[in-house]
Amino acid sequence: MTTTATPLKKEPSNGSALKETETMKALVYHGPGKKSWENKPKPVIKETTDAIVKIFKTTICGTDLHIMKGDVPEVTDGRIIGHEGVGIIEEVGSGVSNFKKGDHVLISCITSCGKCEYCKKGMYSHCSNGGWILGHLIDGTQAEFVRIPHADNSLYPIPAGADEEALVMLSDILPTGFECGVLNGMVKPGDTIAIIGAGPIGLAALLTSQFYSPSEIIMIDTDDYRLSVAKTFGATQLINSSKENAVEKVMKLTKDMGVDVAIEAVGVPETFELCESIVGAGGHIANIGVHGKSVSLHLETLWSRNVTITTRLVDTISTPMLLKNVQSKKIDPNKLITHHFKLSQAVEAYETFGHAAKEKALKVILTNQ
Amino acid sequence: MTTTATPLKKEPSNGSALKETETMKALVYHGPGKKSWENKPKPVIKETTDAIVKIFKTTICGTDLHIMKGDVPEVTDGRIIGHEGVGIIEEVGSGVSNFKKGDHVLISCITSCGKCEYCKKGMYSHCSNGGWILGHLIDGTQAEFVRIPHADNSLYPIPAGADEEALVMLSDILPTGFECGVLNGMVKPGDTIAIIGAGPIGLAALLTSQFYSPSEIIMIDTDDYRLSVAKTFGATQLINSSKENAVEKVMKLTKDMGVDVAIEAVGVPETFELCESIVGAGGHIANIGVHGKSVSLHLETLWSRNVTITTRLVDTISTPMLLKNVQSKKIDPNKLITHHFKLSQAVEAYETFGHAAKEKALKVILTNQ
Amino acid sequence: MTTTATPLKKEPSNGSALKETETMKALVYHGPGKKSWENKPKPVIKETTDAIVKIFKTTICGTDLHIMKGDVPEVTDGRIIGHEGVGIIEEVGSGVSNFKKGDHVLISCITSCGKCEYCKKGMYSHCSNGGWILGHLIDGTQAEFVRIPHADNSLYPIPAGADEEALVMLSDILPTGFECGVLNGMVKPGDTIAIIGAGPIGLAALLTSQFYSPSEIIMIDTDDYRLSVAKTFGATQLINSSKENAVEKVMKLTKDMGVDVAIEAVGVPETFELCESIVGAGGHIANIGVHGKSVSLHLETLWSRNVTITTRLVDTISTPMLLKNVQSKKIDPNKLITHHFKLSQAVEAYETFGHAAKEKALKVILTNQ
Amino acid sequence: MTTTATPLKKEPSNGSALKETETMKALVYHGPGKKSWENKPKPVIKETTDAIVKIFKTTICGTDLHIMKGDVPEVTDGRIIGHEGVGIIEEVGSGVSNFKKGDHVLISCITSCGKCEYCKKGMYSHCSNGGWILGHLIDGTQAEFVRIPHADNSLYPIPAGADEEALVMLSDILPTGFECGVLNGMVKPGDTIAIIGAGPIGLAALLTSQFYSPSEIIMIDTDDYRLSVAKTFGATQLINSSKENAVEKVMKLTKDMGVDVAIEAVGVPETFELCESIVGAGGHIANIGVHGKSVSLHLETLWSRNVTITTRLVDTISTPMLLKNVQSKKIDPNKLITHHFKLSQAVEAYETFGHAAKEKALKVILTNQ
Repeated sequence: MTTTATPLKKEPSNGSALKETETMKALVYHGPGKKSWENKPKPVIKETTDAIVKIFKTTICGTDLHIMKGDVPEVTDGRIIGHEGVGIIEEVGSGVSNFKKGDHVLISCITSCGKCEYCKKGMYSHCSNGGWILGHLIDGTQAEFVRIPHADNSLYPIPAGADEEALVMLSDILPTGFECGVLNGMVKPGDTIAIIGAGPIGLAALLTSQFYSPSEIIMIDTDDYRLSVAKTFGATQLINSSKENAVEKVMKLTKDMGVDVAIEAVGVPETFELCESIVGAGGHIANIGVHGKSVSLHLETLWSRNVTITTRLVDTISTPMLLKNVQSKKIDPNKLITHHFKLSQAVEAYETFGHAAKEKALKVILTNQ
Repeated sequence: MTTTATPLKKEPSNGSALKETETMKALVYHGPGKKSWENKPKPVIKETTDAIVKIFKTTICGTDLHIMKGDVPEVTDGRIIGHEGVGIIEEVGSGVSNFKKGDHVLISCITSCGKCEYCKKGMYSHCSNGGWILGHLIDGTQAEFVRIPHADNSLYPIPAGADEEALVMLSDILPTGFECGVLNGMVKPGDTIAIIGAGPIGLAALLTSQFYSPSEIIMIDTDDYRLSVAKTFGATQLINSSKENAVEKVMKLTKDMGVDVAIEAVGVPETFELCESIVGAGGHIANIGVHGKSVSLHLETLWSRNVTITTRLVDTISTPMLLKNVQSKKIDPNKLITHHFKLSQAVEAYETFGHAAKEKALKVILTNQ
Repeated sequence: MTTTATPLKKEPSNGSALKETETMKALVYHGPGKKSWENKPKPVIKETTDAIVKIFKTTICGTDLHIMKGDVPEVTDGRIIGHEGVGIIEEVGSGVSNFKKGDHVLISCITSCGKCEYCKKGMYSHCSNGGWILGHLIDGTQAEFVRIPHADNSLYPIPAGADEEALVMLSDILPTGFECGVLNGMVKPGDTIAIIGAGPIGLAALLTSQFYSPSEIIMIDTDDYRLSVAKTFGATQLINSSKENAVEKVMKLTKDMGVDVAIEAVGVPETFELCESIVGAGGHIANIGVHGKSVSLHLETLWSRNVTITTRLVDTISTPMLLKNVQSKKIDPNKLITHHFKLSQAVEAYETFGHAAKEKALKVILTNQ
Repeated sequence: MTTTATPLKKEPSNGSALKETETMKALVYHGPGKKSWENKPKPVIKETTDAIVKIFKTTICGTDLHIMKGDVPEVTDGRIIGHEGVGIIEEVGSGVSNFKKGDHVLISCITSCGKCEYCKKGMYSHCSNGGWILGHLIDGTQAEFVRIPHADNSLYPIPAGADEEALVMLSDILPTGFECGVLNGMVKPGDTIAIIGAGPIGLAALLTSQFYSPSEIIMIDTDDYRLSVAKTFGATQLINSSKENAVEKVMKLTKDMGVDVAIEAVGVPETFELCESIVGAGGHIANIGVHGKSVSLHLETLWSRNVTITTRLVDTISTPMLLKNVQSKKIDPNKLITHHFKLSQAVEAYETFGHAAKEKALKVILTNQ
């Protein structure tokens, strides 16, 4: 993991049509295991629907760790990483009407054009002109500035007086836990639900599941610290699956009925198959985890169990609702934030977040000061 | 396959309280590969909520063939097989209020008590006091008479003037295709759907999917005859997957978008995995097939595809609607009936149905004459 | 309001088949303005599906006041009033399987047979063999004993250790507020809702609306005391519509958007028309109130506003969920109980409940001691 | 009704920045009772998201007749009328990406920006930057050319080989009948529905209701000719409410249960109140009619009937589905077209459409030749 900065060559100034390229600092990926906090050209408006946002606060996602390992081959050498953050509008293209310079905005991890077939269906994750592209196919938010395409549909106004740091959790993690886990799982009042994985995403599902008042929330993980955090977040039952038989314990807790909803927030076959074993007849398995390989679906027993299994890349359609419920204090996203860094300490922040268990880290905040 | 009748011992008559046991004829399972058309005691009311129905017409289900092979170990030697049929009420228990002697009734393959937690949720398939028990855990309908527990909730009145033979298709096959395939798949107007398997169940899904006016119905099977039947039933595209690459063809037909709904009506890993390959982003896989082993669920690609996968044992909650739409001629279940036998020819009927491809058989009707 | 007891004639004993008629005490309606705490025959099993419940605790409903005024002409002289309560099973008919003597049970205000067309659709309120009949068309619960028809579907088991007094609120008021107001109004996370009427029913809607985490709950009433109660129950905005212009204030609070859901919990034209004035485009008006006359529906403005208006007699389908969420302490029904009486003080309890504003009464509990 | 053309003054040409104003012909409203086919400036791109469409075919809506009478005061002298049509893209602004010059397009009667709060919820009718503005607040389609704001979200591509004349019915009338009547009414397989009003909108509801396979469709009108048309469109029962008691007949047909869905397609109190009288317990009243005054809502009976009443200005979210189902021949919109005119005969076409009963007119097509 090296931080050798690639020097940024200034392009020669040739007349009034071309202004001197401005530079900024950013965290740049240089192939598996290599990243650097370095100079990059400051982004400029390319399309009339673009906005340039000065980053105020950003964070690091588990996906960013995967990118750094080289697990996401679409991310190429030189890419600025990051898809979460809040900031201030620096400039907008002529086609942007919802925002103007100086507006405080929340950046969605999903870019939505608002006019393709998928966007019209509310499936922004599969936007023909966007989707997850920030810090992936285009430069991202772990930088002093970022260009946001289709700004009218991909940014959200921050209400005056809001706790902007808390709102960084609304770029990705809270809508992901909510939409992929809670909405897809169709959690409803009175339900008994299980969440497998008490990392940041599982905890986001835990927090947002309570919008629907389930009676019991069983949290399953192998890390006692994270389980203890889950307890303070509202879990009613804790199971450390490295110490006890999770299936047996869930079945005992549910009087052999199984759970109404099992939310998978890890992304490996074992945890998905655990969901298959504990879901009750008529129940839901809502997958949030990013899986690298196939799992065994036990249709020989499940075929007659009236179960529903869902997958989803977050659409961030719930962002406006989440903003309202943060403002009305139904949920406190600050609970997810454990560590703070300056944006310029991004490499150090990765070190901490990359050893989350040891550091007892959930989400880290990087502030552009 | 033997038909040696087990002689029925008459119990000694001992006083007025015990009337002489009456006998009837029935198709009886005697272990793998063994069945017989033989004498059995005529069923009597055991619970106040029972009804005794004189069978008018019944049929054979693919599941009955599995039972005969010994694939359903809960079915024990001596069991009368069959879970479909129409008939006439012979006698009702004192607690039955919806029916009386002489009423013509449709028998549901699912017994529902109407008062357990599952029945109250409309999930009759998992009724704590019923579910699929006819011709499985209790004696069934391939007999001159059958006892129907929880008759008020498990029988349906046949409207005057109805085509009763057609209604035999409403005991199991049409609600199964509709509920597990069409309702669970959430087929909607304008959809492109694919049905894998053009056997009776797949054809039932094909017929009932048209209640929701999909734009395109792609039927996939390996038997050209069944595909040609599907064409006459309303399929708009046919794919013989033994002759052409089904995935490639579906993708070409859908301009690489995949289908909105893929209905699995076979029950083997290959066909389920075909569904995984052709379902579009945001689409549904609705499993109808009875599976004997697990399948590979390719979460490494599906995790971000916003798909929904469902399983279901038919609840027969749609039976009243199906009755209405048969009466109003929105659907003609007679199309599914290819062969007729006397009930006393049940063994011969099994021969024909057991060689469905060779016999070009879909559903066979057995009439009690 | 007279309490002259009608003397109960004992029927002559004629042989072992007829046991001496036992008597009990009950609150009996004797025409408008007349009621009495008097002797009545203790109820007996009439149908195999009946249960006799010894009342432990009951309460008085606003509807009971209407009955006493003569507003409900189906209620005839001699009727025992009351449709709420908890108790202990004294005896069950031979067809009852969910309950046995000694079980502690919650009585639903709605009697459901579980086998008519409406019950199968979950619309118990319109049960062909039940619906709201207790204390209306048959004798009710303000008595030492009550006969409950269709007991398996009309009673609910009380979990061991439950606060039985709190559960009296689940007979009618909580499911009514929840089903007619919250479920029908489709309250969802982030919503701004208004509840018109802070009486017991409006407060029940207020409590149960929070199962779905609306961002803002505006409570509108003319009684400052009840509004102050609403504040402690979770209302975020209070409007005394006798002191300020409710429409103007709601519009100001919602930045002229109107509310997502307006719940009518009074039952007069003015309050319903207030709902019409404050509902936003795409919003819901959920009527709970019992109306005695028609209202003006302003289609000249509403026709293009994409609004949904619902009415409902409670079905009590949510009772099992409510039981779970009381047990898991998501909701505390005790908050609704302000006064206690002995069952034998029923007439006095009516006095207090009939002057609810003066007495600052919400719900009164009558205990059979 | 005058057709004196107001002569169009050419603006003086002042340099290269201003090209000579081109003119076109259009139908122009000049106050109540006054309209004219006259010269108007050809529209030009004003915003980068605009498109200029050369009209190929358009039609006249019942709303246009209201405008001509002066019932829609927002429409001012000089406005070009019309909000339906198909045409060819003449020019697009720099921000339009879904369309290019030469594309054949269907014009939606609703303009949608795709980026306001309402559009994101799929409620295009209330778009903050659009909604129904064509031929209302901005110039419309009864002209040789029209400017379409927010073209990417307000136009739909016409598939090659489509019957473009038939698609004119998809600009307004079919989505209106479908969304306001059928979708809002939640028509489902097996339902008994009633449609009040067999004019073009009621017939559009009739055609599209069949996407969901109701068992019975009762059509109610006072015009025998229109009822006879309804018969050929799929109605199963006809009631001429000027000749027989509609409520009595519906109750007889439904065995006193009432209908599952009553669709109001007239817009006067009598027909809405007819819906109130015939809707069954648990049923839906879906209003399509444009109402000029309030109606009596009989809550004194409806409060306990579990009914749902909806209103809606069409959102045209169903246009892509309707296009698919026209292409797959599930529906034939040509059935609604009774008369043809040249676009230049617009005034004459209004004469015919304005006397629809006498002329036996449903929809008229005006072709720009």
